[in-house]
Amino acid sequence: MAHRAGPHFLQIPGPSNVPGRILRAIERPTIDHRGPEFQALAKEVLEKIKPIFKTKNPVIIFPASGTGAWEAALVNTLSPGDKVLMVETGQFSTLWVELATRIGLKPEVIEGDWRHGVDPAEVEARLSKDKGHEIKAVCCVHNETSTGVTSRIPEVRKAIDAAGHPALFMVDTISGLASADLRHDEWGIDVTISGSQKGLMLPPGISFNAVSDKALEAAKSSKMTKSYWEWSSQIGQNPTGNFPYTPNTNLLYGLNEACDMLMDEGLENVFARHERHAEATRRAVRQWGLEIQCEDTREYSPVLTGVVMPEGHDADAVRKVILDKFDMSLGAGLGKVKGRMFRIGHLGDFNDLMLCGTLSGCEMGLRMAGVPIQTGGVQAALDYLSGNA
Amino acid sequence: MAHRAGPHFLQIPGPSNVPGRILRAIERPTIDHRGPEFQALAKEVLEKIKPIFKTKNPVIIFPASGTGAWEAALVNTLSPGDKVLMVETGQFSTLWVELATRIGLKPEVIEGDWRHGVDPAEVEARLSKDKGHEIKAVCCVHNETSTGVTSRIPEVRKAIDAAGHPALFMVDTISGLASADLRHDEWGIDVTISGSQKGLMLPPGISFNAVSDKALEAAKSSKMTKSYWEWSSQIGQNPTGNFPYTPNTNLLYGLNEACDMLMDEGLENVFARHERHAEATRRAVRQWGLEIQCEDTREYSPVLTGVVMPEGHDADAVRKVILDKFDMSLGAGLGKVKGRMFRIGHLGDFNDLMLCGTLSGCEMGLRMAGVPIQTGGVQAALDYLSGNA
Amino acid sequence: MAHRAGPHFLQIPGPSNVPGRILRAIERPTIDHRGPEFQALAKEVLEKIKPIFKTKNPVIIFPASGTGAWEAALVNTLSPGDKVLMVETGQFSTLWVELATRIGLKPEVIEGDWRHGVDPAEVEARLSKDKGHEIKAVCCVHNETSTGVTSRIPEVRKAIDAAGHPALFMVDTISGLASADLRHDEWGIDVTISGSQKGLMLPPGISFNAVSDKALEAAKSSKMTKSYWEWSSQIGQNPTGNFPYTPNTNLLYGLNEACDMLMDEGLENVFARHERHAEATRRAVRQWGLEIQCEDTREYSPVLTGVVMPEGHDADAVRKVILDKFDMSLGAGLGKVKGRMFRIGHLGDFNDLMLCGTLSGCEMGLRMAGVPIQTGGVQAALDYLSGNA
Amino acid sequence: MAHRAGPHFLQIPGPSNVPGRILRAIERPTIDHRGPEFQALAKEVLEKIKPIFKTKNPVIIFPASGTGAWEAALVNTLSPGDKVLMVETGQFSTLWVELATRIGLKPEVIEGDWRHGVDPAEVEARLSKDKGHEIKAVCCVHNETSTGVTSRIPEVRKAIDAAGHPALFMVDTISGLASADLRHDEWGIDVTISGSQKGLMLPPGISFNAVSDKALEAAKSSKMTKSYWEWSSQIGQNPTGNFPYTPNTNLLYGLNEACDMLMDEGLENVFARHERHAEATRRAVRQWGLEIQCEDTREYSPVLTGVVMPEGHDADAVRKVILDKFDMSLGAGLGKVKGRMFRIGHLGDFNDLMLCGTLSGCEMGLRMAGVPIQTGGVQAALDYLSGNA
Repeated sequence: MAHRAGPHFLQIPGPSNVPGRILRAIERPTIDHRGPEFQALAKEVLEKIKPIFKTKNPVIIFPASGTGAWEAALVNTLSPGDKVLMVETGQFSTLWVELATRIGLKPEVIEGDWRHGVDPAEVEARLSKDKGHEIKAVCCVHNETSTGVTSRIPEVRKAIDAAGHPALFMVDTISGLASADLRHDEWGIDVTISGSQKGLMLPPGISFNAVSDKALEAAKSSKMTKSYWEWSSQIGQNPTGNFPYTPNTNLLYGLNEACDMLMDEGLENVFARHERHAEATRRAVRQWGLEIQCEDTREYSPVLTGVVMPEGHDADAVRKVILDKFDMSLGAGLGKVKGRMFRIGHLGDFNDLMLCGTLSGCEMGLRMAGVPIQTGGVQAALDYLSGNA
Repeated sequence: MAHRAGPHFLQIPGPSNVPGRILRAIERPTIDHRGPEFQALAKEVLEKIKPIFKTKNPVIIFPASGTGAWEAALVNTLSPGDKVLMVETGQFSTLWVELATRIGLKPEVIEGDWRHGVDPAEVEARLSKDKGHEIKAVCCVHNETSTGVTSRIPEVRKAIDAAGHPALFMVDTISGLASADLRHDEWGIDVTISGSQKGLMLPPGISFNAVSDKALEAAKSSKMTKSYWEWSSQIGQNPTGNFPYTPNTNLLYGLNEACDMLMDEGLENVFARHERHAEATRRAVRQWGLEIQCEDTREYSPVLTGVVMPEGHDADAVRKVILDKFDMSLGAGLGKVKGRMFRIGHLGDFNDLMLCGTLSGCEMGLRMAGVPIQTGGVQAALDYLSGNA
Repeated sequence: MAHRAGPHFLQIPGPSNVPGRILRAIERPTIDHRGPEFQALAKEVLEKIKPIFKTKNPVIIFPASGTGAWEAALVNTLSPGDKVLMVETGQFSTLWVELATRIGLKPEVIEGDWRHGVDPAEVEARLSKDKGHEIKAVCCVHNETSTGVTSRIPEVRKAIDAAGHPALFMVDTISGLASADLRHDEWGIDVTISGSQKGLMLPPGISFNAVSDKALEAAKSSKMTKSYWEWSSQIGQNPTGNFPYTPNTNLLYGLNEACDMLMDEGLENVFARHERHAEATRRAVRQWGLEIQCEDTREYSPVLTGVVMPEGHDADAVRKVILDKFDMSLGAGLGKVKGRMFRIGHLGDFNDLMLCGTLSGCEMGLRMAGVPIQTGGVQAALDYLSGNA
Repeated sequence: MAHRAGPHFLQIPGPSNVPGRILRAIERPTIDHRGPEFQALAKEVLEKIKPIFKTKNPVIIFPASGTGAWEAALVNTLSPGDKVLMVETGQFSTLWVELATRIGLKPEVIEGDWRHGVDPAEVEARLSKDKGHEIKAVCCVHNETSTGVTSRIPEVRKAIDAAGHPALFMVDTISGLASADLRHDEWGIDVTISGSQKGLMLPPGISFNAVSDKALEAAKSSKMTKSYWEWSSQIGQNPTGNFPYTPNTNLLYGLNEACDMLMDEGLENVFARHERHAEATRRAVRQWGLEIQCEDTREYSPVLTGVVMPEGHDADAVRKVILDKFDMSLGAGLGKVKGRMFRIGHLGDFNDLMLCGTLSGCEMGLRMAGVPIQTGGVQAALDYLSGNA
């Protein structure tokens, strides 16, 4: 392709822009994954990742995409034919349902309109009806990447408790971790699933399962076949800085650096930064006269914002204009909202001026694509960001 | 750890030394894996990888370690309870048997002494006895990384044919590919399994299945549960430069570069270079008066050489001296040969002077560890490498 | 310093933001500067740099900052006590006068108000008066980095010709090259001086003299003492890919890449891009109600824009707010305009969205610093950039 | 050029192999050289470089090759027509004489045979004869890069003192610094000249003057014209982390890292490592039956070893064989010893196994080029390095 001046703006909701500091860490030569230098690194990283999940329990690192970590959560804890309660919040929750079905589970799906998060009341209702405790797990997506809706996980926990139901609670925070607050231990999550290429600012290639004692206990009686995803072999070897098969060494270099960067900034500052950028983005969208995909103000995502197109306008055509003219990638509408919305990622290694550039690209691209918007969206964001709103 | 001057010598049989050119490729910013730039890259890489396997059929790329590609080969083609004929050549073939067992297959194992490759005659004998064709697959390791023995795959193919047996032929060449000749199509292999961190000179994190038409046909009736490893979703999306889940983008940058480097040097030159280094290494070992783990001269590995310790000497103590004094990592004896041998990797991005440094470290370390060797091993290698042997 | 998320915006008028592609080129291992690989590189780079200066004559590359190339231009062509006509356009022209004085030349200075470029008429007048041709050189800054004023070099050439004066014509385009059009041969320049860290997008460390035949002829009778800066030793060795002393090898890797990037985009496209960004910037500044330092519309710089503060407001205080709050570096007012203006660099590896981020940072920072501006500057830029102005 | 597997061995006596850690430091984005982050870096580096020179006085950093620092030493302290006593030890001392002559000094040269270092007795004799103190400076090369001879600088100091002569003492340790011990203060050196691309392990591009109070005093009355090289402008600005013109920022990143690496290893350990490698090299050379260029055992260089060819054999032909066959660069014989010797660099980021590879390449290349040597040179080095000599 022809050379384009200046940096590409990677404003999809992940992979996020990988900072140079992490790229340079990843670029270090690969070392012997059975030697003392690696073992020291592995032990360090396995400790540093825990506070990111806000857990004291083990976090398992898979050399695999987030999709693999989804599978791992299920195959380690459940048995063929088990019923799982899964909540449809968008494309990714839907894909998780498909995965569960494919590997022989029986998902019971709470349907959704893709504009709301998990409804704790409905979860409670369903569980309350399940007197026989046939439902073995409740599966929710924390931050639905396809819509920009962040579910209220603590309230879902309370709903499960209110129903007095023993189901495991599994939460996918692939695109939420290290951008939106997530407290594995405090919120009573049994398996938290995440990935590298979002808030952790890494390239894709590693993914995670944070596990509760209850999940580990469940694993003992799980009858799903598994090998690569098996927790026990990981947990057995990790304390000595080893993995049951060759780890993705270079991404672990990057993960080490990412944890340092997040802790140096302060996790709560990281969350506040994301909230601030999300609010600025929403002000721009509203000024343009466009709808935000998320309809519940309690569920706005700090990670990304889904923008709904006016009737008769194709979001993908807008995205193409923006990519061609301004060298910025935005997220497409996925699945059933394809063409009807686009997604602005404002996560990871990101700051005010990058956001201003991002929103500028959106505003200009929308106009150039002929979408009838009101100008002034960027101005609204500037007013907010500068404290003049 | 304290700073050590000069480069570490990573002479384990993989991960191999990653060249700077590949590290710099991997360091490029991650891009949108659904955008046109990525799709062009993916299509390019998916084509370039084929001649490395010497196949015209699809090669599937998993964002996973080689262990995952082992699992993928089995779960895509077989069904629960299927009998598979597996040949024990060392630790890795043993681990593959364990994996097969764990996921519900019934391995029938041809036992071995870890000093020889697959015996084609025995394969033929076993298959000939299997009149009912209960054996669904024959699984061999091409280059056994734990011993330095390279099996004669074309002869195993002939053995299967001689037995007139319809079993699938699966070959693990995780540590053989791009170092030792491997011809997926010509040799009639149904599934070839490989990884990134050996002859391909990449960090670990991606792995491969090259598949025959027969394997693809078998996949249609396979009843193993699977999701992440499913070939069909990969093969369905790859032609447009897409993957069914987030690919390991940065390693694909590196893979693209690795394919260019291999093709630029010429695959046959790459193989000849490995053979030459292996021969020089064996001459050194013999001069030291030590035994080579591989006992059949037709099966010497071009990738690594297993060196047997004299009675009463611990290979791991030697390895520790060499790591401490000379900053070189060598491969340990694995499994049942732990402590009784060490392994010298001479693969990947490697040249004559690196080999001389490697053998020098071995010779000095053996002496410093008190192993009774004859000196002159490096000299023997120099004589051979300079054409003065 | 504490970690800050997202990229720093380096919007001083040089060093400009160095693109990753160039940083990765520079990161390649240093090689033998007397070996064939280096010589091939050097010959390639020495050819590729010529069209950037639009010359067919030699371009000399010094391992030195631009200041060194200023000195080189003078000491190679002149003799102690020579009179040179130098035009004050800002801080850098003033520093060049100081340098000339320090090394024993006699500058005659045409004074300026720092808001205009070189006045061709005045040059002609001065030269016309110099009947004895005591003036040996006319020295002008093409793009005055301290003010954002770009002189009309072809008209200065015409002025010299109109005066029928034989003086050498020396042009400093340290911050102009590869951002603003500069035609060494066509414009009749005798020595063009430039540096690496502006339009060439490299880190600082190499600088250039492009030389005319007349300049080379003058060099033969020059009596200034010199050694490091001596052209003849460079020109003698360059044709074989050698330099008279150790070159800055790694920056030459980067230069090679920079030339490829510029040629791939197309020099005229590069200039148009800079003009477009400069115009957008000026529209923002005017909307804010602030003055542009450059007062002649024919002399607006495509490289940077100088912004004048309203009475009573300190530009450096504004810059500090912007650095602290938005992690953006802007150029300070230098010398006699210190505190009275700041400079926005919009050069090098730069694109529309980076510019929008840059202007957003300025607008927000100005407001936060209490400068009484009108908002809407960014909006004016967006209107222009999107074709809606 | 065609791809070659494995790393190039850069065994010229500088540039030395640049470690990845430094390359990655250099690869960081360039920042504002007038901003607080740079100033903090500059102050840090300006302090860290002092113990490398073993001085408490300022060390001036020039964005220039070592040749520039030679010039700087002279033009800051001397006046036109000054007599300087310079000692011929090889090609670099000869080039320094040429430089001094070119800039208008009057070198008085103590001739040498290129196989010995500076003779302190002869320096004393010459100075003693100079009753009128017309000699203003004594200039010696510490480690003569063209021959592998390291002069006994403390004894030269004593010679000057014994003669009771007030001349300034200038020492070029461009290739000695951070490889061979050098004590600016303790040894009473007035100007120490060095560069980046040798023991400091950086790419070329910055160079140094360490200065005594006496040198600073002399600078006040120096009448040489100068601008770029002027100490006073550097010393005036350095305390605030500034430089009088744009510094080579990215090499300063590398310098910072290099200082950390050297201090982490320990300077005395660094020197011992170099001595050890030099001794191993000499043992190899002697076993080959070849002569070492340096004839005085007190003056063996720890940085490089000059190897003399037997009559009738061309060193450059040997070097070409070694480059072509083994991808190793060795230093050529320079000036009057061209073709009659080659130079093995064993400096910088270097370790035992690299040395073994280096000597192996020499031994094989010498044989392949038809030079009548005895084999066993590498063996002799191994015996020494492993403590079995």
